[in-house]
Amino acid sequence: MIRIVVTGGTFDKEYQELTGRLAFKDTHLHEMLRLGRSRVDVSIYTLMMIDSLDMTDADRARIIDECRQASEMRILVTHGTDTMVETGRALAAALSPSAGKTIVLTGAMIPYAFGSSDGLFNLGSALSFVQVLLPGVYIAMNGRCFAWDRVRKNRETGVFESV
Amino acid sequence: MIRIVVTGGTFDKEYQELTGRLAFKDTHLHEMLRLGRSRVDVSIYTLMMIDSLDMTDADRARIIDECRQASEMRILVTHGTDTMVETGRALAAALSPSAGKTIVLTGAMIPYAFGSSDGLFNLGSALSFVQVLLPGVYIAMNGRCFAWDRVRKNRETGVFESV
Amino acid sequence: MIRIVVTGGTFDKEYQELTGRLAFKDTHLHEMLRLGRSRVDVSIYTLMMIDSLDMTDADRARIIDECRQASEMRILVTHGTDTMVETGRALAAALSPSAGKTIVLTGAMIPYAFGSSDGLFNLGSALSFVQVLLPGVYIAMNGRCFAWDRVRKNRETGVFESV
Amino acid sequence: MIRIVVTGGTFDKEYQELTGRLAFKDTHLHEMLRLGRSRVDVSIYTLMMIDSLDMTDADRARIIDECRQASEMRILVTHGTDTMVETGRALAAALSPSAGKTIVLTGAMIPYAFGSSDGLFNLGSALSFVQVLLPGVYIAMNGRCFAWDRVRKNRETGVFESV
Repeated sequence: MIRIVVTGGTFDKEYQELTGRLAFKDTHLHEMLRLGRSRVDVSIYTLMMIDSLDMTDADRARIIDECRQASEMRILVTHGTDTMVETGRALAAALSPSAGKTIVLTGAMIPYAFGSSDGLFNLGSALSFVQVLLPGVYIAMNGRCFAWDRVRKNRETGVFESV
Repeated sequence: MIRIVVTGGTFDKEYQELTGRLAFKDTHLHEMLRLGRSRVDVSIYTLMMIDSLDMTDADRARIIDECRQASEMRILVTHGTDTMVETGRALAAALSPSAGKTIVLTGAMIPYAFGSSDGLFNLGSALSFVQVLLPGVYIAMNGRCFAWDRVRKNRETGVFESV
Repeated sequence: MIRIVVTGGTFDKEYQELTGRLAFKDTHLHEMLRLGRSRVDVSIYTLMMIDSLDMTDADRARIIDECRQASEMRILVTHGTDTMVETGRALAAALSPSAGKTIVLTGAMIPYAFGSSDGLFNLGSALSFVQVLLPGVYIAMNGRCFAWDRVRKNRETGVFESV
Repeated sequence: MIRIVVTGGTFDKEYQELTGRLAFKDTHLHEMLRLGRSRVDVSIYTLMMIDSLDMTDADRARIIDECRQASEMRILVTHGTDTMVETGRALAAALSPSAGKTIVLTGAMIPYAFGSSDGLFNLGSALSFVQVLLPGVYIAMNGRCFAWDRVRKNRETGVFESV
């Protein structure tokens, strides 16, 4: 059983047609897993729905708390890409290695609702990595998976790369 | 570096508007990896473009040969779902364990070109599993990964399940 | 009020994932009109769901009957493109000009369910033409509208053209 | 021959993945007409690419000028929905009825690039109305067509309705 913790990010942004703005409504995770015909045993929990640029220390404390208290040992966190690395670092600092949990953060560069999104690919990737990786905190983007302290987002290219 | 061997299957089927039939043209793998913003180092080779129900022993021999001669140690094979398990068995029988190759077969229930395909999810999943699994022959479908001799396709549900 | 008579055709074909075949389930007309945010007052009736190559004289008699008995004076018929012109001819022969009905046939080259369909464009076009054209039988395809006896489908290009 | 004057609006907005903002790049009109397999003879001219909330009197003067100088008698203007009615009024005030031009404005509630857009439906509709309506200035939205002074956008529902 895998815990999926939804925090928002580009993944779940939608176009509000009355205002012309991007905003959050409900998570698309259920729909995405159905489309992918996933038969992985998961429980999805929407913890928050925010842009990761707006994520505060208090928000990160809630994510840490959620991961700490989850009974599942394998956890996938959907997250905005802009501060995903920062949340990875906070999780790694707060969770004791002896807890034995495998936590994979992932996100998207294009909202799932916009049709040409990388979200479904990233979800397939992250959900696979989280099933097999040793305990630790990881970031799965661009088909690759990095330890939380071996990665940064290149803001010019939008690509996650090794450091 | 990962080798991607394309053999066709639902993954790559397209709608031919003049005949109203489903048929193969070029593989969508390049486009799918671009959409997924994949930065995994891959080389894609289209070996054949056929429906897996039409796959003969000679075709399977060509797949085995391709996997045997590939210099890459990690190989992803896209394949129709109907006889994917059969090809997995043939690969496992033919390749010596000492070759040390990790081979993951994947496919799709809905053509990628049809918009609501599971293909992108499966590709993200298979490409992730192939990076981390021990040598052997596997099938990655429905977000899960099975050893070649521990899986069958349930033809009533279209789902790959443990045996 | 406009009557929409659904007869099937490529418009409404779907991919059956268990068989890998194209088949009909329910019409997509309701969903298409919702996506187009249509506020045209319509009543949709699914008369049949068949490939127009399989359409018999008895089927055409049912379409004629449906158009004749409809209380609406403006009728849109969705239809496979292969024999759309033939059905147009049958309708024109059977319906008295004094009935004063405007009937527009339309269809699609690519199933609506496949994402890259011309269906939504054709529906917007046909629904507009049927609101303003004089009584008669017409075919609306490729953004244009033709009188039933001034058009043929070019089978090499898939385009409807003047004759 | 129909002139298509592109001014921007939701129709042509795209998601910029590096900034997470909506912005304009190139028009999607060519792609949309290709998808719709349109064989209507058109010439497309991108006059500006702006949000209609940002449209100034100077911008409207350019649209009027473009419509006045066009050699085509039938003109389709793509435009943001928020001030489409205002531009329609300006066009009607500026163009002499004796010019004999049929001008239809249309737009979209959802960007075409987002997959679930009403844009293709609206384009099919507007392109059809502009071929058959008498000279005048019209707004084609929601499958319907209104004279410029008989319509308003309901900002609560996003629907264009009669006044």
